[in-house]
Amino acid sequence: MAPIITLLTDFGIEDGYVASMKGVILGICPGASLVDISHMIPPQDVRAGAYVMFTAYKYFPAGTVHLAVVDPGVGTERRALVLKAGGQYFVGPDNGLFSLVLKACPDWSARSLENSAYWRSEISNTFHGRDIFAPAAAHLARGLPIESLGPPSGVVTPPWGSIIQSKNSLRGQVMHIDHFGNIISNFNRAEIERFAAAERLSITLGSHSVNRFANTYGEVEAGKLLFLFGSSGYLEVAMNQGDAAEALGVRTGDPAVVHFHGSS
Amino acid sequence: MAPIITLLTDFGIEDGYVASMKGVILGICPGASLVDISHMIPPQDVRAGAYVMFTAYKYFPAGTVHLAVVDPGVGTERRALVLKAGGQYFVGPDNGLFSLVLKACPDWSARSLENSAYWRSEISNTFHGRDIFAPAAAHLARGLPIESLGPPSGVVTPPWGSIIQSKNSLRGQVMHIDHFGNIISNFNRAEIERFAAAERLSITLGSHSVNRFANTYGEVEAGKLLFLFGSSGYLEVAMNQGDAAEALGVRTGDPAVVHFHGSS
Amino acid sequence: MAPIITLLTDFGIEDGYVASMKGVILGICPGASLVDISHMIPPQDVRAGAYVMFTAYKYFPAGTVHLAVVDPGVGTERRALVLKAGGQYFVGPDNGLFSLVLKACPDWSARSLENSAYWRSEISNTFHGRDIFAPAAAHLARGLPIESLGPPSGVVTPPWGSIIQSKNSLRGQVMHIDHFGNIISNFNRAEIERFAAAERLSITLGSHSVNRFANTYGEVEAGKLLFLFGSSGYLEVAMNQGDAAEALGVRTGDPAVVHFHGSS
Repeated sequence: MAPIITLLTDFGIEDGYVASMKGVILGICPGASLVDISHMIPPQDVRAGAYVMFTAYKYFPAGTVHLAVVDPGVGTERRALVLKAGGQYFVGPDNGLFSLVLKACPDWSARSLENSAYWRSEISNTFHGRDIFAPAAAHLARGLPIESLGPPSGVVTPPWGSIIQSKNSLRGQVMHIDHFGNIISNFNRAEIERFAAAERLSITLGSHSVNRFANTYGEVEAGKLLFLFGSSGYLEVAMNQGDAAEALGVRTGDPAVVHFHGSS
Repeated sequence: MAPIITLLTDFGIEDGYVASMKGVILGICPGASLVDISHMIPPQDVRAGAYVMFTAYKYFPAGTVHLAVVDPGVGTERRALVLKAGGQYFVGPDNGLFSLVLKACPDWSARSLENSAYWRSEISNTFHGRDIFAPAAAHLARGLPIESLGPPSGVVTPPWGSIIQSKNSLRGQVMHIDHFGNIISNFNRAEIERFAAAERLSITLGSHSVNRFANTYGEVEAGKLLFLFGSSGYLEVAMNQGDAAEALGVRTGDPAVVHFHGSS
Repeated sequence: MAPIITLLTDFGIEDGYVASMKGVILGICPGASLVDISHMIPPQDVRAGAYVMFTAYKYFPAGTVHLAVVDPGVGTERRALVLKAGGQYFVGPDNGLFSLVLKACPDWSARSLENSAYWRSEISNTFHGRDIFAPAAAHLARGLPIESLGPPSGVVTPPWGSIIQSKNSLRGQVMHIDHFGNIISNFNRAEIERFAAAERLSITLGSHSVNRFANTYGEVEAGKLLFLFGSSGYLEVAMNQGDAAEALGVRTGDPAVVHFHGSS
């Protein structure tokens, strides 16, 4: 069975950077199934990368290796990591890119990619994706034990992603704007269901408040706003047949507040 | 021989949606060759999706499975289909997405994807691509007979794509604007050749009329408009080394009229 | 071991053109590993295509077939080529697309794709990528000797890419703007190191002069300009955490001049 390696980066699709990584991988692990998750993560937006990785990884078979490079700290002292979580592997910089996966899979372990025997022989200052992360992912996919790649390691907690809970509200952030302009918050279903006694919810983004909770987009008229749990399980604000992010002028990182009305 | 599954959607390339489908597919049919046709179909533009599918499918080997998801009706009562046509398989919503293929392959048969044994165990309201269509495509590619997926079914006729024929003209529409700004109509060679007696043709898009018929772009000067049969066999308006759609302000769905001059 | 075929074009990602080529390839060479280098080369910009090919090819294993189609001369008399260079194969139009590879691999040989037995049976005027280049690449990947594809051939020298050397400067051009807005020149490390006696360098793009040479982006403050040897080995102008091309209004083909100060 062909091993699977996914790739997620902020490299875009104009250049040869992603293909360079794939060439390195196929040189080490011929016949691997390579699957692009996305290369359109906004440049250096680790939070959006973490969200997109979270939405995709769980649909892959056990043993898949996920290679992710959104790496504003390349060339500095940030660690290079390999993680095992939920029966899958994750390779990339230690900057929070896998934080949503780790939250969902508490049984994880981590190693620091310090064994240079599994790096490319020449290491550039600006492209660890090709020179350190891609070879590590390929060796793993080929069957190398994770322990060979380096010593056990901790993992940093990213400065974003927190939720502040008060009696009748949750304060969080916008994690991602998707292709359709849906605005995805960092509130998942479990966090909202703690307030099960509430009679109704609303969500505030900047000066805009959205009051209509729905199960699917088509429940409201075209051009109207709604909020729902999206296919990833996070609360999102959408516009039926329209672009909610453009209509509201919202961007990733903006604050998002859920209000619970009528809970006692 | 690795089975081939192609993917065509309006999901864009920013998100993890396409990768989620690929993960589901590789879990069911390991080693499949996955080929992206396009994920940049304009959101919910079934007509453009139908055209792009038509241009690509015929170049794939017999037995290829084409998975297409441009699905404005997701979550409503629209049927989910698998088709066999021209020796290949097509999986997607019943909304006209395969109508150009069916027109070209009159020997088709269709099944409705009602056998939930081949769905994912959890079905979201908003993402049948991942939960119903991807597993069906993967099981087919792995060798499941089409009959196992559900009962025989009809196929809807889409409300677009018609051509109105009068004595000296054909009235149709713009089906697709390609990457180079070429404006592709829904007139194919057979429809034009019925008027073989005409001395010359012109094509009108909005208030613009194009009179120069050519065999290839380079036959006219840079910046000049022409019309020709493109590589897909449909009549298209192009600008040599330029962007015809931008120059003429044309969009998919706009009316297109071919005039036949001097036929008796 | 699955043969590898890479693809580089200016076809964009909206249409079915790239998939058509992949369908043709998989019909001839089932199970090939297909890797996209880029399909976002600016339309007809052979120089940018040559650069992106150069940055990626060397990371692929020996025997890889690189299929590249940036082909403003399609339908005219320009030759169709297959090259062997650096242990790898290159298939595409004879217009300079492989010139940077050939410069790096002086041991190359070339054949003209004149043996129509390895073309598709029907050849369009506008799409040799699908009808001539893709089948040639697939037959090569499957093991056909390069000699079978056609007779020995020369290769054109492109009109761009030259460097004019004077006592204290090198005059060249911008080859490529990458996804991050980095401005990549056609000066490689060897050309700059000829002036090793110089005390310092500066680089001029239009009316802008950049004086800060660095080893990595993070050596300067956010928003500041620098120049460095990028991961491809060419001199590039960058802005730390910013878009240098946008800030300076620079485009591919613009002149670039390196000045050597204090050399005697």
